[in-house]
Amino acid sequence: MANITLVSEYNCFGGKVRFYTHQSTACKAPMRFSVYLPPQAESHKVPVLYFLSGLTCTEENFMVKAGAQRYAAESGLMLVVPDTSPRNTGISGEDDDWDLGTGAGFYVDTTRSPWKQHYQMYSYVIEELPQIIAENFPVKSDRQGIFGHSMGGHGALVCALRNPKKYLSVSAFSPIAAPMQCPWGEKAFSHYLGSDREIWRAYDATELVQTANYHSPILIDQGTADNFLANQLLPDKFAQACEKAGQPLTLRMQAGYDHSYYFIATFMRDHIIEHHAPILHQ
Amino acid sequence: MANITLVSEYNCFGGKVRFYTHQSTACKAPMRFSVYLPPQAESHKVPVLYFLSGLTCTEENFMVKAGAQRYAAESGLMLVVPDTSPRNTGISGEDDDWDLGTGAGFYVDTTRSPWKQHYQMYSYVIEELPQIIAENFPVKSDRQGIFGHSMGGHGALVCALRNPKKYLSVSAFSPIAAPMQCPWGEKAFSHYLGSDREIWRAYDATELVQTANYHSPILIDQGTADNFLANQLLPDKFAQACEKAGQPLTLRMQAGYDHSYYFIATFMRDHIIEHHAPILHQ
Repeated sequence: MANITLVSEYNCFGGKVRFYTHQSTACKAPMRFSVYLPPQAESHKVPVLYFLSGLTCTEENFMVKAGAQRYAAESGLMLVVPDTSPRNTGISGEDDDWDLGTGAGFYVDTTRSPWKQHYQMYSYVIEELPQIIAENFPVKSDRQGIFGHSMGGHGALVCALRNPKKYLSVSAFSPIAAPMQCPWGEKAFSHYLGSDREIWRAYDATELVQTANYHSPILIDQGTADNFLANQLLPDKFAQACEKAGQPLTLRMQAGYDHSYYFIATFMRDHIIEHHAPILHQ
Repeated sequence: MANITLVSEYNCFGGKVRFYTHQSTACKAPMRFSVYLPPQAESHKVPVLYFLSGLTCTEENFMVKAGAQRYAAESGLMLVVPDTSPRNTGISGEDDDWDLGTGAGFYVDTTRSPWKQHYQMYSYVIEELPQIIAENFPVKSDRQGIFGHSMGGHGALVCALRNPKKYLSVSAFSPIAAPMQCPWGEKAFSHYLGSDREIWRAYDATELVQTANYHSPILIDQGTADNFLANQLLPDKFAQACEKAGQPLTLRMQAGYDHSYYFIATFMRDHIIEHHAPILHQ
């Protein structure tokens, strides 16, 4: 059984926010994650909803800013939020750029030096972390959903499209929806995966959705006043691919909203209560 | 008309979070505050609910962490959150202690050097800021309520008890309820007001409530796992004074909750929707 260490705990909406650290097998480094245990988890097993955060975030931002605990308590879902990368690995240059290395793992299994020794965030998120959650918490480990924001929206879509049996539901806030076609994605994939763009396709939701046959509708909220919309996020390209592939998608362009947690908090209820909970409690 | 400068703006729950800076007359220094304008403010005037924050906070913490915008939007209240002190005034030692000077104005009008030139937070909160709000926003300036956390819970109680006509409703999260009897209060009052404890009574809720005859019930939430409860906050002393004076008080001891915003967020709905809104909309 994996050894996890409780760092801190806070009562919240009748349940518990907790922060943990542990030695990751996939990343060969200490990793951190946060959880919210709803009150229902005291008496029975609950479904799990993973949230993947955006560039520069830690496992804390979501718990502090998103206002999700109320809805998780209301619907009886456990929330799990991993950090966005390993930290302090000793890799040269890991802290040089805000969009590469620390805080920018992009939820991929890197294959290039110097990253490949520690940056295995895809395997960490889809395999190691769910196993840890199953071993340590009262969850229905066959009832998992996933969502995320920006880089984490990209991560959530990729994880779900590649593993439809693991994730029964998926949604995203302002995801990097076509990373092969935007500067953030091209930079990360070049460094993490090398120059062969064929390999990148395994981590690009717009590519994956063309053949994924994901079993349930996807929800995406995107603010129209988001500074990254036109250059980095490109939800229209994902929507076109969904339409072509017959993948049900609800893409909501939210007028005047930006890329911040004020936007995320506003639509959190819709994602948890309206989208994920009905599927996860089926 | 007072000149205020918009620093930033975010859509949130159908309304607007905004951050402002302005030159304060009371504090003879630049001051910052944040507001939340609910969607209702686009079509008609709305009541105003002030939130006073705790030690070390700025005007931002509450807006990011408390999850209050949803309830303000639901109930049609404008939220106003001042910073907790002037900053960068040039006063010697203003940044030396986390519980004195910067971030620790204690909502008093200081009378001692070196503070008295700039630290006039009581007048700023009860007079200058409401005037600015009345001049610049669509508010019913005769429908004001006030609440706060910790040092700001102390501030809210003092402002309301001394100005019952200005504030129709008051509540607090883990307030410093008897500052003359605790280390935080004694330190601040000594430096800001001098050694004459008679003068301190004007800023101590437990003293003020004995003769205040405040017109409506007071709500206080206090976590039982709050590390500051026994030594600094002392809500029992305030409760005893309320009982003696016949002041209606609902003091709720919330089992297992601490001093954090996870606690505040949990009970925010009760304060805005159940306590303040019914009074402010009467």
